[in-house]
Amino acid sequence: MMFTAMKRRLLLVSNSTLHGGGYLDHCQQQISDFFGKDVRRVLFVPYALHDRDAYTKTARNKFQTLGYEVDSLHEAEDPVLAVRKAEGIFIGGGNTFRLLKSLYDSKVVIEIRKRVMEDGVPYMGSSAGTNVATISISTTNDMPIVYPPTFAAIGLVPFNINPHYLDHNSSSRHMGETREQRITQYHEEADTPSVLGLREGSMLLVEGNKATLLGTTKARLFTRGKQTVEYDPGSDLSFLLTDAH
Amino acid sequence: MMFTAMKRRLLLVSNSTLHGGGYLDHCQQQISDFFGKDVRRVLFVPYALHDRDAYTKTARNKFQTLGYEVDSLHEAEDPVLAVRKAEGIFIGGGNTFRLLKSLYDSKVVIEIRKRVMEDGVPYMGSSAGTNVATISISTTNDMPIVYPPTFAAIGLVPFNINPHYLDHNSSSRHMGETREQRITQYHEEADTPSVLGLREGSMLLVEGNKATLLGTTKARLFTRGKQTVEYDPGSDLSFLLTDAH
Repeated sequence: MMFTAMKRRLLLVSNSTLHGGGYLDHCQQQISDFFGKDVRRVLFVPYALHDRDAYTKTARNKFQTLGYEVDSLHEAEDPVLAVRKAEGIFIGGGNTFRLLKSLYDSKVVIEIRKRVMEDGVPYMGSSAGTNVATISISTTNDMPIVYPPTFAAIGLVPFNINPHYLDHNSSSRHMGETREQRITQYHEEADTPSVLGLREGSMLLVEGNKATLLGTTKARLFTRGKQTVEYDPGSDLSFLLTDAH
Repeated sequence: MMFTAMKRRLLLVSNSTLHGGGYLDHCQQQISDFFGKDVRRVLFVPYALHDRDAYTKTARNKFQTLGYEVDSLHEAEDPVLAVRKAEGIFIGGGNTFRLLKSLYDSKVVIEIRKRVMEDGVPYMGSSAGTNVATISISTTNDMPIVYPPTFAAIGLVPFNINPHYLDHNSSSRHMGETREQRITQYHEEADTPSVLGLREGSMLLVEGNKATLLGTTKARLFTRGKQTVEYDPGSDLSFLLTDAH
C-alpha cells in the first residue's frame, strides 16, 4: 500500500469558479503544472450535472486553452475501458449524490481507484469531484436528490473534505446550522475521519505521500475530539495521508 | 385513502428557533392550538440530535410551559408500542439523515404513518422532523453523516419540504449553489414532487385535506417544469395534498 500510494497524484480543488472569474480560471496555473507536458488527453467525468453535453463543452473549451484535449466519459461506449486508457482524469462539480450514483452505475469506481493508486494516473477533482475522491461523501453540502448505493467514495485519500467551506456570518439572522456545526455533527458519529474544510480559492495537491495546501485561502481542519486548526496556503498536510486520519 | 387522510392533522414547522427568540417560542401559540386540550402527553422523538437526554429535557421544559407532559421515544422500552399509545407526536430538528436512519432502526416509520393517517394522532415536526413527514428527505439541507436504508420518509404528505428556506444573498461572493439551484437540480431528476420552501418563521398546518400556511414569512413553491410561486401567510395550499403533487 505504501508503495502504490507513492504513485498517487491528485489535485483536489474546492470550487470550479471563484467570484468574479471564469470557469477554472483561479486554478489554471495549478492545472497546467499538475497535468504537465506528458498528458495530452484528459478524461472528463460530467456526471454531476444534468446536461452532460453542455458540461463537457465547457470543460473541453477551458482545457483546450491550456493545451489538453478532453474526452468525456459519457461519450465512451465502454466507460471502464475509457478509464483504463485514460492519461489523466478530471471529475467536475455539481451534485455529489448524482455524481456518486452515476460512478457506481457505470461501474468505474474501482477502476478509477486502481488507475490512480497503482498506475499513477493524475486525478483532478473540483467540488463534487473532490468529494468523491475522499473516503466518503458524508461531508458534501449538496442535496440528496438521488440515492446512491453507498456513501463510500473512490477513497484516494483516507479523510474527508468539505468543499466550498464557509465561515459563519455573525451578522446573519439565519438559524440553520453553520457549516462548522454540521461537521461537528458528523464527528458525533463513531469512527469518523478528519474533515478538511477547503474554502473557495483553496486546493490540495497530493503527490504520493505528500500533501500541500495551494491557492489563496486558508483551510480549516476538523478532527474528532480535537480542536480545529487553521492552515495557511503552502502548508504541508502530509500527516493527513497516514491511516490515523 | 381519502377517508383516512381526512383524519390527518399535521403542524410542520420550518425551524425550532427564530433569531432572537427561545426554543419554539415563535410557534407556541400554534402548538397550543394544534394539540389543544384533549392531548395531555406528547411523544417526543429526539433522534435527530446526538444527546437525546439533553434534547428531551429541552423539549419537555418547553412543552410543560404549554401544559403538556412529554414522553421521549428513546426512553421507551418498546418504541413501536410507545407510538401505538401516543396521543400526539413531536419530532424535533437536527440532522435529518441521523433522524431517518434511527426511525428505521427502531422500526417506527410504518407505525407513525398508521397512527397519523388512520387514527388521527396529531403530528408536529420541526426542521428535520418536518423533512421526515414528507415523501422523502431529498430536499434536506443537512449533511449525509450516516447512511439511511432509503431516502423515502414517513410520507404524511405527497410533496417535499425544504425547511429553513433561504433566499439568495446577492451581495455574497460565495459560489456554492444557492438553495434555489439545489432544488432545481432535484427537479432535473424524473418524477420528482413539488418542494415547498418554508422560510424560517413559517409553518404548514394540515387538517385532513386542507393545508394552510401559517407564521410570519412567505413560502416559495417549486414545481417541476413550472415557474416558482410565492405564497403569503394564510394562503390555502390544499392543492398540494392531491396526488398530482
